[in-house]
Order: sequence, then C-alpha cells, then structure tokens
Amino acid sequence: MSSSSSSSSSSSSSGGPSAGTAVGTATGQFRKEVDEALHAFLARQGPGLLAISEDLRPMISALSALLAGGKRLRPAFCFWGWRAAGGADGPEIAAAAASLELLQASALVHDDVMDASDTRRGQPSVHRRFEALHAERGWRGPADTFGEGAAILLGDLLLAWSGEMFETSGLPEDRRARGRGVYDLMRTEVMCGQYLDMLESTRAGGTVASALRVVDFKSAKYTIERPLHLGAALAGGSEELTAALSGYGRPLGMAFQLRDDVLGVFGDPSQTGKPAGDDLREGKRTVLVALTLERASAEQAATVERLLGDPDLTELSVADLREIITSTGGLAACEEMIDGFAAEARDALAAAPVTGEAREALAELAVAATARTF
Amino acid sequence: MSSSSSSSSSSSSSGGPSAGTAVGTATGQFRKEVDEALHAFLARQGPGLLAISEDLRPMISALSALLAGGKRLRPAFCFWGWRAAGGADGPEIAAAAASLELLQASALVHDDVMDASDTRRGQPSVHRRFEALHAERGWRGPADTFGEGAAILLGDLLLAWSGEMFETSGLPEDRRARGRGVYDLMRTEVMCGQYLDMLESTRAGGTVASALRVVDFKSAKYTIERPLHLGAALAGGSEELTAALSGYGRPLGMAFQLRDDVLGVFGDPSQTGKPAGDDLREGKRTVLVALTLERASAEQAATVERLLGDPDLTELSVADLREIITSTGGLAACEEMIDGFAAEARDALAAAPVTGEAREALAELAVAATARTF
Repeated sequence: MSSSSSSSSSSSSSGGPSAGTAVGTATGQFRKEVDEALHAFLARQGPGLLAISEDLRPMISALSALLAGGKRLRPAFCFWGWRAAGGADGPEIAAAAASLELLQASALVHDDVMDASDTRRGQPSVHRRFEALHAERGWRGPADTFGEGAAILLGDLLLAWSGEMFETSGLPEDRRARGRGVYDLMRTEVMCGQYLDMLESTRAGGTVASALRVVDFKSAKYTIERPLHLGAALAGGSEELTAALSGYGRPLGMAFQLRDDVLGVFGDPSQTGKPAGDDLREGKRTVLVALTLERASAEQAATVERLLGDPDLTELSVADLREIITSTGGLAACEEMIDGFAAEARDALAAAPVTGEAREALAELAVAATARTF
Repeated sequence: MSSSSSSSSSSSSSGGPSAGTAVGTATGQFRKEVDEALHAFLARQGPGLLAISEDLRPMISALSALLAGGKRLRPAFCFWGWRAAGGADGPEIAAAAASLELLQASALVHDDVMDASDTRRGQPSVHRRFEALHAERGWRGPADTFGEGAAILLGDLLLAWSGEMFETSGLPEDRRARGRGVYDLMRTEVMCGQYLDMLESTRAGGTVASALRVVDFKSAKYTIERPLHLGAALAGGSEELTAALSGYGRPLGMAFQLRDDVLGVFGDPSQTGKPAGDDLREGKRTVLVALTLERASAEQAATVERLLGDPDLTELSVADLREIITSTGGLAACEEMIDGFAAEARDALAAAPVTGEAREALAELAVAATARTF
C-alpha cells in the first residue's frame, strides 16, 4: 500500500494553493468550510456514541485527532468540479465534499493496519494508538491484536460515515442522485486499486507499466479525477465537461502519486508526517522503484531487492537506497515523468470548457498537488 | 468478537421458518428474491471489476462464495417490518433488504480477521482463502499479511456496496430517505458494539450485566430490531409500530445472540459452519461464560480462565470447559434467560398493532432465531 504520505501530511495550511489570489482565497475559504463541516459532523455523532457507552470516548478522540490533519485535497477538487459546472457556494457542497475526507481517513486507517505503519500525519497510527491504550491500562490479552481490531472497526465507522455525511449534506436528492454513481465508482476503484497495489508487491520483476496501472486506479482517479467528476455531477455538469476534467485530472493524479512516491523516499518527515524512508521499509513497489530497477546494475538491483521491505532498515541503508535511486537516474526519470504528466494536465486545462475562475483555481491546485515540497 | 456463528451457518435452507404455512411460504419466497437480488448485484459489479483488472477475479470468487451462505435473517426481519407497516411485495424491497447481507458479510470478513478465525460458513475464512492463494502461487512476502490485507479490502468493498445496493434498490427517494436514518444508526451501533465486545474480552471479571450490554448493541439491535425498523421506516410505518417492533425485536435479538453463544460452545460444526468449541478457542467473553463464572468454584473458575482463549485448545480441554459450563448450571441459566427473552418477545408481539399475517410470520421467525439447532 502507499496511500499518499504527502497528501496526509499534518502540515496542512502551509501546502495549500496560494492565498494571494482571488481563487486561492476561494479555495482557502472552502477549506475552512470543509473543516467546519467535519467538525459539525463529529459533534453530531459524539453524543450518540457516548450514549451507547462512555467506553467509546477513545474512539472519538482518535477520530478527532485523525481528521484534524490532511490537506483536504479531494474536497478541493470536488469543489472546483462543482464550480466548473456552475455550482454556487454553500454549506451543502462543503459537507458533501468533506465526506471525501472521511472516506480517505478510512482508507488511511486500514492502510496503516495492512502496512503495519507506526505513524500517520505525524502522530501514532490508529492501531498503534489503541495498542498504547491497551498497554497503558494494563488490559488483558495481546495489545497489538486489540489495536488492530480497534483500527479495523474505526476505519469501518469512517467508511460508513462518509456515506452518511454525503447523504445528509443537505444537497437536494436530484443532485445527490447524480453524484452517487461517481461516489460508488470511486469507492470500488480505490479498494480494487489497493488490492492491485498489494498484489504488485508480491510479484518479483514488477515493471514500470504495471506500477503505473496501479497508480491509475489506486490514486490518480481516486484523488483527483473522481472528486472533480463528483463535484461536476452534483452540479449537473455536461458530459463534455466531465471528459475535459478527466483530461486534466487523470494525468495530474498520476503526477500527484509519483510526487508522493518521491516524497515517501526523500521527503522531510516534518512535512510528510512519516519517518524518513518509511516507504522503503514498507517495501512499496512504486513507479520510482521500478524506474530505478530498470536502470540499475545487477549489483545495485540486488541491493535494492535485499533492502527494500526490511522493516528494520537503518538510516545508513536508507541512505544507500537513496543513493542508488539517484545515481541510476531513477529519480530523474521519475521527475521527468511528473513534469510530463503535469504538462499534459496543464494543456488539457487550457483547452477545457470551464470559466476563467475555475481554470485559475485548478491550475493552482495542480501546482500544489505536485510541488516538490508541501 | 462473536459475530453470529449460527446466523452465518452454511446450512441455510434447513434453518429457515417453516415452509408449511402461508407466511412461511411468503418468507421463503422473499428469501429467494433476496438471493436473486444479491446475485444480480454481483453480476452487475463483476464486469466493472474485471475491466479494472483480470487480477481481481479471486475477489469476485471470494465474494460469490461468501454470499452464497447465510440465513438471510436480517433481510427477513426487514421484510416483515415492511409488511407490518403495509408495504407491498416487490423486487425493490428485496434489493433494499438484501443490502443488509452485504453489510453483514462485511462485518463477518473483518471479524474473522480480528479473531484470526480459520473458517466461516463451513469454508475457509476470506483472509485464509487469500493466504492460501498467495502460497499456491508462490508469491513474494508473507502470505498471512497478504491474506489479511485482502480481507480488510474485501470487507471494505462489501461495506461500500451495502450502501450502494440500498440506494440503487429502486425504492423511491422518499422511502429511502425515511430508511436512511435507521441504516446509519444500525451501522454505527454494530461497529461500536463490536468495539465494546473486544473491550469486554480485555477485562478480567466481566459481569453478566456488562456482557449483556455488549449483546444489545452488537447483536440484538443489529440483527433484529434495526432491520425491523428499517423495513417499517421504508414503508412509512408509525412511531407506534416502531415502538411495538422494538418490544418484540429487542428481547428476541438478545435471545438470538445467547442462542448463538450456546451454539458457539455446544453446536454441531456441520450446522454452525465453525469447528466445535471455536468460541472457546477465541476466548469470547459471552453471557454464557459470565453466567458460568458467576456459579463456578474457585477451582472451576481458574480452569476456565486458564483454558479460555487458548488458540491451541484440544478436544479434551473443550470437553472440560463444556463440562464446567454444564455442571455449574451456567448453561441452564443461559437457556432460562433465552426462554425469558423469547417469552418477552412473544408477549410484545401478541400486543403489537400488526396484521395477523405479520404477527404469524414474526412468531415463526422468533422460533427460527432461537431454536436449539439450526
């Protein structure tokens, strides 16, 4: 798995689109509305949980902590898909778009269980958090099993709530009905994409092509194209608009994930919210790794195969792997690919039948989603 | 965790309500419609998955195998809640009710991961199935991690699909809007109930009262009361009817889970779809166990505490535990409790403002849900 180390960074405000422009301000304002919508939704759920049992308080704390982080990238794309199709501002679209953050949080929590990741958004991952609670209270039985079980259930709750938040957004039924098909498709695609990602790691000799295919479903569509489509569908956008948004969103989504892969290896932990080299420890078979192996000598390839996925990888070995990824030209090739996809997205955007305002906002989001640092 | 070993038995046809009565025939006919709706839904999803990748074929097989089993108890209660509120037969209510089977399948798949259960509905559990696939194909990395990851994702897919199937059931929006609140509540309750169940196992000295509280949310509401409410809400039932259905459904749900607990210890594996004594190996802190410990001598209690939850429990030790559960009077007390709850449900049903037909059907379902063998 490799769910978006960068998109899930805790340094949420620093990485957003520029606030200096009118559309940047609109995106920033929408971000605030998304935060408020999430806050209101949690505030609505809390009393229900505590009415079931006071013992659910740690669940509520974990949810709040998790949802405080995140760049709200998917809601932002949903919003600009909506605006591009002529939708007006309002708390309803903010709530509908914010539901994507619950879906994403669910994916992250389950992803961290599958990857046995210790951290997320600069904090302990949910399963580690409940493992620590178990140990702290001196409860009976294995703490790690408890932590994983709690995280699986909390991820389920977030997934169920994402649907609930969408349906109770306040958008009228005719709009929701148009969006529902996109939502359904997006969920199926990301879950299947995650499975294919896992499968990719089980296979020796994965190619650049097969790694790219995984990125498409697991990340590109899910992070950018489908949120755009969702917003456009909710606003009643035309098929022509939908196609144009794909032309921009899909390559940008590819670029976004490739940037995430680079950050997973070279990123600053204070920015990514993950320890340095965590993707290497988890043995992610990213496009970056495939590009490196394509260019590696037999000896270099053997080193990569030996070190990649070692959970106890030292700082020194991380440095060795980085050196190979750089010196083989794997990193440069990946950066080139990112530039190519980003250029493709820009060209598509230039030709898209959207208002000047939406074009400008989407251009800013493209920069934010692929920037070298977040 | 202790998700319904009996309700998830593979011996699906034998345990249903009597087919000899008119309402038994109606329930049986509805069951067939639920099967057809599930089949149609999977048939609709399959091509989409294969269009993403041929590699998703094992996911489809696992889903089909899993959904072939199950008693369709929740859809049956949903149906009779619907009929009690004056709803007419039709494929739409069958599809809406069938979506509860997807929700339940999701819970079972995740439950089996959390409990590390080997079997479900007489077949290998989903995580074991994918673990075996990994081993068979000689894939790289740990097979058990792959199996668990695949099961987490497949459970997520089922959860997402349950919402999708409900929303695309064909029931008009005004009906779905009335049902949605119940659906949302039910999902939150069962997930929180599962967490509390897990918590219960971590605490020494759980009481009968605390075990009963878990049963209420994890099972009683989820299996019977909420499905009844969902059906009634979809048909526009009155508040009075909703309250009456609670009067019947909640005690029956308690009886159902207590019966399930007894079957988890004493049940015939060919009927429960689980190895004999599996609940004992998993260390489930059921009401039955709490009733036993309440009555046990110090020596008996020590034996229970020593053996319960030992994953390598031998047949002989299972027999020892059964002997203690029986000789202390724990089993008899549990049977008495089941009878008490079932009687409470019968009395409430007798006074409920429902048609004679619905009353008869719900009486039959009460017998089916609490019968000593399924």
